[in-house]
Amino acid sequence: MDAQQLRELGQQFRVDSIRCAAAAKSGHPTSGMSGADLMAVLVANHYRYDFEHPKRPENDRLIFSKGHASTLLYAIFRAAGAITDEEMLRYRQFGSFLEGHPTPRIPWVDVATGSLGQGLPIGVGMALAAKYLDRLPSRVWVLCGDSELAEGSQWEAFEHASHYELDNLTAILDVNRLGQRGETMVGWDLDVYRDRMHAFGWETIEIDGHDVEAIDRAYTEAAGTTGKPTVVIARTIKGKGVKAVENQPGWHGKPLDNPEAAIEELGGIRNIRVDVAKPEPAQAHTFPTQALELPRYELGDEVATRKAYGEALSALGAARGDVVALDGEVSNSTFAEIFGKAHPDRYFEMYIAEQQMLAAAVGLSARKWNPFASTFAAFLSRAYDFIRMAAISRVNLRLAGSHAGVSIGEDGPSQMALEDIASLRAVHSSIVLQPCDANQTAKLVTAMADADGIAFLRTLRPNTPVIYDADEAFEIGGSRVLRSTVTDDVTIVASGVTVHEALKAAETLAEEDIGARVIDLYSIKPIDAETIRTAAEATGRIITVEDHYPEGGVGDAVLAALAELGAEARVVKLAVTDMPHSGKPAELLAAFGIDADGIADAARQLVREPIAAS
Amino acid sequence: MDAQQLRELGQQFRVDSIRCAAAAKSGHPTSGMSGADLMAVLVANHYRYDFEHPKRPENDRLIFSKGHASTLLYAIFRAAGAITDEEMLRYRQFGSFLEGHPTPRIPWVDVATGSLGQGLPIGVGMALAAKYLDRLPSRVWVLCGDSELAEGSQWEAFEHASHYELDNLTAILDVNRLGQRGETMVGWDLDVYRDRMHAFGWETIEIDGHDVEAIDRAYTEAAGTTGKPTVVIARTIKGKGVKAVENQPGWHGKPLDNPEAAIEELGGIRNIRVDVAKPEPAQAHTFPTQALELPRYELGDEVATRKAYGEALSALGAARGDVVALDGEVSNSTFAEIFGKAHPDRYFEMYIAEQQMLAAAVGLSARKWNPFASTFAAFLSRAYDFIRMAAISRVNLRLAGSHAGVSIGEDGPSQMALEDIASLRAVHSSIVLQPCDANQTAKLVTAMADADGIAFLRTLRPNTPVIYDADEAFEIGGSRVLRSTVTDDVTIVASGVTVHEALKAAETLAEEDIGARVIDLYSIKPIDAETIRTAAEATGRIITVEDHYPEGGVGDAVLAALAELGAEARVVKLAVTDMPHSGKPAELLAAFGIDADGIADAARQLVREPIAAS
Repeated sequence: MDAQQLRELGQQFRVDSIRCAAAAKSGHPTSGMSGADLMAVLVANHYRYDFEHPKRPENDRLIFSKGHASTLLYAIFRAAGAITDEEMLRYRQFGSFLEGHPTPRIPWVDVATGSLGQGLPIGVGMALAAKYLDRLPSRVWVLCGDSELAEGSQWEAFEHASHYELDNLTAILDVNRLGQRGETMVGWDLDVYRDRMHAFGWETIEIDGHDVEAIDRAYTEAAGTTGKPTVVIARTIKGKGVKAVENQPGWHGKPLDNPEAAIEELGGIRNIRVDVAKPEPAQAHTFPTQALELPRYELGDEVATRKAYGEALSALGAARGDVVALDGEVSNSTFAEIFGKAHPDRYFEMYIAEQQMLAAAVGLSARKWNPFASTFAAFLSRAYDFIRMAAISRVNLRLAGSHAGVSIGEDGPSQMALEDIASLRAVHSSIVLQPCDANQTAKLVTAMADADGIAFLRTLRPNTPVIYDADEAFEIGGSRVLRSTVTDDVTIVASGVTVHEALKAAETLAEEDIGARVIDLYSIKPIDAETIRTAAEATGRIITVEDHYPEGGVGDAVLAALAELGAEARVVKLAVTDMPHSGKPAELLAAFGIDADGIADAARQLVREPIAAS
Repeated sequence: MDAQQLRELGQQFRVDSIRCAAAAKSGHPTSGMSGADLMAVLVANHYRYDFEHPKRPENDRLIFSKGHASTLLYAIFRAAGAITDEEMLRYRQFGSFLEGHPTPRIPWVDVATGSLGQGLPIGVGMALAAKYLDRLPSRVWVLCGDSELAEGSQWEAFEHASHYELDNLTAILDVNRLGQRGETMVGWDLDVYRDRMHAFGWETIEIDGHDVEAIDRAYTEAAGTTGKPTVVIARTIKGKGVKAVENQPGWHGKPLDNPEAAIEELGGIRNIRVDVAKPEPAQAHTFPTQALELPRYELGDEVATRKAYGEALSALGAARGDVVALDGEVSNSTFAEIFGKAHPDRYFEMYIAEQQMLAAAVGLSARKWNPFASTFAAFLSRAYDFIRMAAISRVNLRLAGSHAGVSIGEDGPSQMALEDIASLRAVHSSIVLQPCDANQTAKLVTAMADADGIAFLRTLRPNTPVIYDADEAFEIGGSRVLRSTVTDDVTIVASGVTVHEALKAAETLAEEDIGARVIDLYSIKPIDAETIRTAAEATGRIITVEDHYPEGGVGDAVLAALAELGAEARVVKLAVTDMPHSGKPAELLAAFGIDADGIADAARQLVREPIAAS
């Protein structure tokens, strides 16, 4: 399109932003209006996208990191002929796929945005996929707000994008100066952004974000820059084109008072149609594969489940070309390094930047790769908002968190994951797994690769004995009854490190003629409720034991499963009930009563209680 | 001390790092060895600290952001005479206060570190306290590793520190090039760090981190710089002084193979004593106060609890000079702006940087201010690792998260907090509150100000009717039975927005001769277990209803409380069981069956079930 047409298209986007918000009686029209010209030039002259086949790997990607400017995105969809005017005006209505912030319920949206500072790091993941995995010339364009540059995750993205020389990534920075409640720290001082981004290794271009010819030149320059990503730093005006709101504070996230007058001021409703160019057909790269040969561990050997994770993931990577691994600079602890050495082309070191690691995994998954991301389970908490948003993005992620609980020992509480089961169980579509031995770990890693949603594998620092045969099968949602007789008095539900303690306790109890059924609850969510119900009916008494704080972990999952089935049992929860500290693993398990002795004591006490009528 | 003495002190710190790790058979001696000279010069010639009175507000503060270098910190304590050699060598033992990573169990440690990238943003909070609240000349020194600069939180700190002109803050950057598993992205290219930090508004000084005279000059320059913070960018060598490990990969987090030889190579054990200078006595600033006059709301009025939060906090701020507020650029949504306008000297705008906001609150709390930090509850997830670490820091924090659950309506799932109760219940020492009306909110805000630990208040976007008199008292750990007769058939436990739905449901049910007891569970943790048990005994059936995902929220808290007391009841949980989307609040509450109709339906179904023998 020529400059005049582009300017008209920009006005159309503004008008449509106002119309959407007016129809919904909510929304962020002024945020869409500042970026309208930036998007008009992009979609008309630079973007390569097949709206009929949005999953084509050759497609460019466009991420609205400033997701609240959704009216602008939906205006683009209308101009591209993807949605009708009527559909657009159902914005934010119950049942409409055009939500307040974009989500992948819309076929042309890959990832959800709306929590600020996530679009650019996710774009890094998509650009990694295009450049190093798909090996296609598709580009990733990310529209960022200026307020969201206060999020540290953006700077993780700036650093990683230049480190990985992502010249297929362009950030479009819509510097309208105004956040929700006032001016940003930087305001319109574009040189400050330029200096920062330049220091982070980016090509920088400063422009007037309403000068369509300057925008056009900037995108051409960005596309032609090699060896590094480019940021187009655009000075824009929030609410541009409507005097009543232009560059005014107090107009964030509000429909305009007089939308009809504003639309008239902008020259009225337009119906310009943009024929977005399709990408050249091309074939995405694939990696060669061989038959799956999982590692096999001998019964009785002592192997850390984190080690089995690394070995199994590496084997899986040989069998499946879609598997990719990322790690947060602890790959020699999580053992992701085993995958990294075997499959260097599909391993991305993300350094100590857990938010960027998760975001990259989201981007890779959105481009149909199969990412496994690992760090200490405690440090997944650093990326909790990204995991929450990944669920809204409906991507499939596999997370491995090592160094669970007090069993890590001397490093102390900062390194101990003790809230991870609770926080990750609460994520929509999540799966929470905690294997207790190496063979079980290998099978669960394999199962994760085909799971829908966000699968979390909690691995252990210390070696634990192999108790399952290498040929035994384990599915997500299952459990194992490890010990049971017809006269069991009590059931011990354990997971991970506590399985081994429970088995020892059961032996001690057997010598005292107390029968203890032991359940290995390796799948904490989904939970094998039927096996727990059967045990509840058989024994009436259940002890849950977990290396985790008492809230929201194994014990609460068991209680919830029983309640769901209307089953009754006397349940006693053993967990880490106080702030732990440094010490040897065995000392710490004992201190919190979650070792064999603590379990046996709890069982003795429980079987002495009279059982309620049943 | 002169240069020769400083060099000797640095060697002592290296030797002691090696000795600690050798005694513990774990630890990170090579990380301590790189920073030894930087710390020797600091404590001998620049640091002002009264070891006998560590809480004095005039004291400088030293934060080991690279907390794994704890051996170096403990070596300092020994040199300063704060601990004995014997105590030092109990490093990492069960029962020793010298944990693997520093925690405030040590009197001279203010905050826990060990999750990287947190020390500098916490230092920002301490520097804000010193400069703007205490108004004392004390300085904050933060020892940072280079690996941890990959964390975005560090760049939030760089931006906020310069925005707030924190010339009392010095970052000491120990650039030893090597992370846990290999080289950093930047390596020894100090100019890259200089350019980045300069672009973020800091004074930068590049030095050889083993040249004690250069270090000395740098600290003098840093202390003399006004209007902006200073970073000393020091090129260091990991494992410096011991050839077997010096600048070698593979030696992170490991004791040396031959500690005796290494100690000999460093010139043997030394017992140099450092007399750390004490600060000049001075009085911290305090703010004037008046009697507490909480806002009062009329029964039947419609007021959002988030609005009541802002009004109550402002009133509290007038009555208590220690109360400080921070917000993440949404103060016109959380209503923290009411406090900000009334008490601008005690309000800190933290922009869209939730990690920095939480870290600043930790720093303020560690300096005995009383910080309330607010944003959308969904976005507290961005700072979850900081909240987890704040618990280990044993600080008192007050968090207000607005826009809870699907009741926010049109903005969609990215803005809806649906995992917050679960994730925050699981934090050690946490308190989780969810008021349903404005008067209750005001009372709980007041109670939070004196609570120990991490108190979270979940507030609502929509207006809700005032149902409690302004004179009614509410304590943390309590609940309210809002409706009860002797013939109740079922108990409905609700919290926040669902209280009003439960009351409506109970009225409908009463017309059908179904008696429903309604409990307002405004304190979700700690929970009023006795009231729940009494209801369980009286009605045998409980429905829990919450605007939250099913895992780890109100329902699971009720189940856990019943189990803890060995009480029995048939419990049915109502919650948000699928991914929500945009729509009107009432439409969404109905869609997930957590409105009055959904509750009444569940109650009808439950009372038709036969009750188990009781």
